[in-house]
Amino acid sequence: MSTLEETIEIGVDGERIAGTFVTPGTLIPGVLFVHGWGGSQEQYRSRAREVAELGCVCLTFDLRGHAQTRTQFETVSRAQNLEDVVTAYDTLVKRRHVDPGAIAVVGSSYGGYLAAILTSMRKVRWLALRAPALYIDSGWKSPKLQLHKDQDLRTYRQRLVLASENRALKAMQAFEGDVMLIESECDAIIPRAVLTSYREAAIHARSLTYRCLGGADHGLTGERAQKNYTKVLETWLKEMVQGSRRSPATASAETPAPAPNASQAQSESPAPRAEAADGADSAREPAAEPRA
Amino acid sequence: MSTLEETIEIGVDGERIAGTFVTPGTLIPGVLFVHGWGGSQEQYRSRAREVAELGCVCLTFDLRGHAQTRTQFETVSRAQNLEDVVTAYDTLVKRRHVDPGAIAVVGSSYGGYLAAILTSMRKVRWLALRAPALYIDSGWKSPKLQLHKDQDLRTYRQRLVLASENRALKAMQAFEGDVMLIESECDAIIPRAVLTSYREAAIHARSLTYRCLGGADHGLTGERAQKNYTKVLETWLKEMVQGSRRSPATASAETPAPAPNASQAQSESPAPRAEAADGADSAREPAAEPRA
Repeated sequence: MSTLEETIEIGVDGERIAGTFVTPGTLIPGVLFVHGWGGSQEQYRSRAREVAELGCVCLTFDLRGHAQTRTQFETVSRAQNLEDVVTAYDTLVKRRHVDPGAIAVVGSSYGGYLAAILTSMRKVRWLALRAPALYIDSGWKSPKLQLHKDQDLRTYRQRLVLASENRALKAMQAFEGDVMLIESECDAIIPRAVLTSYREAAIHARSLTYRCLGGADHGLTGERAQKNYTKVLETWLKEMVQGSRRSPATASAETPAPAPNASQAQSESPAPRAEAADGADSAREPAAEPRA
Repeated sequence: MSTLEETIEIGVDGERIAGTFVTPGTLIPGVLFVHGWGGSQEQYRSRAREVAELGCVCLTFDLRGHAQTRTQFETVSRAQNLEDVVTAYDTLVKRRHVDPGAIAVVGSSYGGYLAAILTSMRKVRWLALRAPALYIDSGWKSPKLQLHKDQDLRTYRQRLVLASENRALKAMQAFEGDVMLIESECDAIIPRAVLTSYREAAIHARSLTYRCLGGADHGLTGERAQKNYTKVLETWLKEMVQGSRRSPATASAETPAPAPNASQAQSESPAPRAEAADGADSAREPAAEPRA
């Protein structure tokens, strides 16, 4: 069934005539954008405009410790920033016209990490993470900036982290919606092993789409990297949103989750939805990588 | 400006963080389908499904004198059926999620005639009329069936009727939204002169799109005619709805109304939006026709 139908009676002149509402399976999707550490909502402003044109209500916001609350940069904790994300989510869902069953969350780096955790606290249907960061769970209420001194993040991010030992990956493992993971090919901050940890955790995802932005660094320096990210994100969101309008009930049956099989080439693990995006030259499938 | 932006403050832990809503110019459009005399909402059921997939909330309904109230077939008047249409419109606009500023009305034959009049009573943005009928204003509360005895409709429909002498055409003349007119090439009930009367009346339309369904009769007998109608209608609605999301504020400036110039070839009079639909072989532009 591609649409929903509801038979109604319309009262006119004390009589009744029959009517039928035919509605799309998904009404207006909401999209929440979570910027990275050291960034601001400005990073997602132009992307939000593009996505709004697809017929979505978008919300960008500044995490505490950034932009107007920059004075808290050295003191703000993950706990506080997660609360920012949850509150922004609640603001989006309460917005008039937004379909609470059709929420996408898009996050970069630290914002991606927080977005992954959000899925364990709120209902998210689509999750897109670009170069998501990874931190050790301890020190949850310590200043985020302090983590880089207290935790050996460089080493932690070089190895495959199991879902059982990390809050973000645990959330990722439980998440049953559609997932997009985006890697920057020349990322000096978030190595591929982190992306692999997220990817291997996502065993219950309805679909998985993995893309690598060729030549891009962590911060997406340069217009080309920025454009490629927008394009990849928009193509995926378009597919998700339009797909949900076409077949809200059958999506889960049609797109089995990828098998969590380490011996399988990673470039084959995405579910059937993960076809190459347009402009595949710059948004390449990653080569198969043996498990560390 | 392609989207709307609203800066907000989000309260969290007694503090405030900045946020921005970016929304599409048009939220969920509503589409009302008005069937013809002797028909029922079933005629529009499958089309409503197609249109709902574009992200619209659709409403079909049975005019009094039809389907369940068929016993009133010989007594129901235009006044009553117009009230049916107005009440159905109000039901659609009140529906949750529907954007009251983005309502399309689609009507066939008698339903097209009523739909045209509706635009003088309620806010309509897009109006699609397929083989719209035309009646003389007198006898407004007489049984509709009686009109075919009391009025020489055959003669009336063969000549060009001026907007000043007919309620439906008067409404058409005042209408400032986008108009689509669809002719059946082999229509034995509604000759082209009626379409021309509607077309010449639509001098204030923001855009005009005129299509002729090749080989089709008045009732759209046969699968091919049915499919062509659906295709032409869907292509137009898609353009209108997506166009409104892209440029809600500039549409009026970009698409001047057609000049009401009788010496101009009719196939050239539509506004710039009226490009040939896909499958143009079966949905042809009509040949130029000298004014009667």
